Amino acid sequence: MVRIAVLVSGSGTNLQAIIDACKSGAIGNGAIKLVVSNKKDAYGLERARNEGIKAVFENKEEAVLELLESEGIDLIVLAGYLKILSPEFIRKYENRIINVHPSLIPSFCGKGYYGLIVHEKAIEYGVKVSGATVHFVTEEADAGPIIMQGAVPVLDSDDASSLQKRVLDVEHKLLVEAIDLYCNSRLRIDGRRVYTNGK
Amino acid sequence: MVRIAVLVSGSGTNLQAIIDACKSGAIGNGAIKLVVSNKKDAYGLERARNEGIKAVFENKEEAVLELLESEGIDLIVLAGYLKILSPEFIRKYENRIINVHPSLIPSFCGKGYYGLIVHEKAIEYGVKVSGATVHFVTEEADAGPIIMQGAVPVLDSDDASSLQKRVLDVEHKLLVEAIDLYCNSRLRIDGRRVYTNGK
Repeated sequence: MVRIAVLVSGSGTNLQAIIDACKSGAIGNGAIKLVVSNKKDAYGLERARNEGIKAVFENKEEAVLELLESEGIDLIVLAGYLKILSPEFIRKYENRIINVHPSLIPSFCGKGYYGLIVHEKAIEYGVKVSGATVHFVTEEADAGPIIMQGAVPVLDSDDASSLQKRVLDVEHKLLVEAIDLYCNSRLRIDGRRVYTNGK
Repeated sequence: MVRIAVLVSGSGTNLQAIIDACKSGAIGNGAIKLVVSNKKDAYGLERARNEGIKAVFENKEEAVLELLESEGIDLIVLAGYLKILSPEFIRKYENRIINVHPSLIPSFCGKGYYGLIVHEKAIEYGVKVSGATVHFVTEEADAGPIIMQGAVPVLDSDDASSLQKRVLDVEHKLLVEAIDLYCNSRLRIDGRRVYTNGK
């Protein structure tokens, strides 16, 4: 059983999708053992507590690392976690940190692209297709090996908020699939490419 | 009836898709009146001649401009045209030049990204979704307002060639749709966004 920690900063809808998938069996061989938020009032913490999952407000990285170790965490999922992790943290959990980003990387990503801003930029640029990306975390922001991507249409009637909503549905789906693949040892990283052993 | 010129450099499969669409009626209110290639042996020229369309090998921009004028061309379609157009040319036909690019712009585009190289870069980067973009041409390469985009999956088994083939199918489809919309005055440009008056 892969022991999962989920790091959040906000309302935690991606966290909820992971919780639901662990319960339904859509994520096999994995269980959330810890939820950490760098924001005291993040609703994600409440979601975790409602499920009987250990939920901790902690802003200091050193303390987060201690928590991860004491809980024997194998996989860290960043689900709307807006704090930058240090290179030391990332190296310690190399190829064991997964992030979800609300665009088709390498478009609309990197420093300064988070939350609604990503969708504002996509709308401004006038793209007709956007999407979501689940990737391993490396030291460079949003540049790690890509596990899954999903496309969504951008409609003439869209603004950033309506696009965000459509992308979020895909984020939930891809994140759950990627975690399931990880927990079942189905992902193989070769340079920048991530292979999935065929289903 | 919108008078269309298609500029090619190579085999002209996108040109063929446009020819077929004009015949079938998938492109309404438009007709190809001129095909120009900057390569003498481009098979695109032969495709045009086979259809009784005026086909000219011409490498000098001034001479191309004269041809466009003498044929009363309304819309220029770049279908695998690898020569850079001058700012003067582009200004003269502002919002009347359409290009197709084999990626989801703004990913894998700009200077140096053409032909198979685009797909090599996408494969190297490890994206799971690529696609095609049809856009209006502005002075900055691959940066004009986007008319249509279509996504294609990148498979674990893909190399640049197999990805190119899958993207090319989408290029044909999008290019035909975009030309049909243009010829029926259905496109409206507002800043960087292109709106399609609802069907």
